[in-house]
Amino acid sequence: MNKNEPSENETGTTGTDFMHGLAIDAVIFGFHDHQLKVLLMRYNKTGVVALPGGFIHKTENLNDAANRIVSERTGLKNIYLEQFYVFGDYGRSDPRPMKDILIANNITHDDNHWLLQRFISVGYYALVDFTKVVPKPDTIFDSCAWYDLAIIPKLMQDHNTIILKALASLRTDLDNKLIAFNLMQEEFTLGDLQILYETILDKKLLRPAFQRKMLSLGILERVAKKWTGAAHKAPYLYRFSKNI
Amino acid sequence: MNKNEPSENETGTTGTDFMHGLAIDAVIFGFHDHQLKVLLMRYNKTGVVALPGGFIHKTENLNDAANRIVSERTGLKNIYLEQFYVFGDYGRSDPRPMKDILIANNITHDDNHWLLQRFISVGYYALVDFTKVVPKPDTIFDSCAWYDLAIIPKLMQDHNTIILKALASLRTDLDNKLIAFNLMQEEFTLGDLQILYETILDKKLLRPAFQRKMLSLGILERVAKKWTGAAHKAPYLYRFSKNI
Repeated sequence: MNKNEPSENETGTTGTDFMHGLAIDAVIFGFHDHQLKVLLMRYNKTGVVALPGGFIHKTENLNDAANRIVSERTGLKNIYLEQFYVFGDYGRSDPRPMKDILIANNITHDDNHWLLQRFISVGYYALVDFTKVVPKPDTIFDSCAWYDLAIIPKLMQDHNTIILKALASLRTDLDNKLIAFNLMQEEFTLGDLQILYETILDKKLLRPAFQRKMLSLGILERVAKKWTGAAHKAPYLYRFSKNI
Repeated sequence: MNKNEPSENETGTTGTDFMHGLAIDAVIFGFHDHQLKVLLMRYNKTGVVALPGGFIHKTENLNDAANRIVSERTGLKNIYLEQFYVFGDYGRSDPRPMKDILIANNITHDDNHWLLQRFISVGYYALVDFTKVVPKPDTIFDSCAWYDLAIIPKLMQDHNTIILKALASLRTDLDNKLIAFNLMQEEFTLGDLQILYETILDKKLLRPAFQRKMLSLGILERVAKKWTGAAHKAPYLYRFSKNI
């Protein structure tokens, strides 16, 4: 992070490979069974907890930067990221926690360092099965771990707000983006799907209405049953349609 | 636009009141009767046609900037704007059309001017009744007018792509955002609403299925009929629920 930084008397965009003023923050939701968690990093030496985030190289596509950042910061590869909102209020960038981090990690003591300026941040979210991914943080963090949504600590800057907005977007997008999340086994029951919905929406759903709605979306196809002695008692299996 | 610009030998963010590298583009859809249009500006002297857009002051909230830009560029006040996507590919910023505009309008001849650098653009869309708003462009444009979606010319940079993505977002968001658009009269029939949907989705909908779906969203309430001799033949009137 520090080898491409400008020296303290440089200004503007010279001397660094990153675009200034623009950041990426990633809200990575982890689902399994009835649990929904979010991935958070704790910075070395300061105890500041924050969303995984980073910056865009001057010649890098924004979405590529988001994938690179998530991969570098967390060790998660090739996960589906969805842009959901740009956080651009002037007052959102309290520079103090970042200043503590820069000093504690001996990166800079310059009050005008570009990392202490205003940042507008593009929010991305993802939804993964947290039992299938093992986060591996890079060197500036001393932990990268799954936190229950119900017990999230006070985070850096407006990151608590970013999580709430990501959760609202995830809930709104559920029907449209479900197939993109690639979360379910290849074949699953409507009961499996209902657990996912109930966990994300944080409420119980009526089974007949849920099943009617899911089938009416036109994204599921029923898998033909194999004949076994007990098959007639097992629930139907579904998979996502190939032609959507 | 040019009174706060840096002189040609300045670099970086000094000398201008705007954040560098970040822009806003607005896709303003206009609906009326069975027509859907989009608002486009033509730059003075060059004939370049583009979406209304602009930049963020260094101490301005992003969403406030979007409202200010739309108001300044088009004369439209207090319209509901929805962020829908950030356009951040490195290759999207072909500087040539903007260079022609800057030269033709005698703003700068500097090839390194900040307006010719890479821009990442936050896309906003809006939906208004185009009979109720009269666009008034500012001085750098010689027109600001409604274009039929079917006959949009080749636009500056990736603005044609931005319109397609905005239209896809509008269609996806229709159920969730409908009330925010504030487009319908206070009281309206399900037939009025169906025309809006059909125009935006560009397809005919089956009336019973459409009505069932709209009523199941829980955002409409039926207005009690006033007694008149002919009332039993008139369709029911609806309004958006107050408590959503």
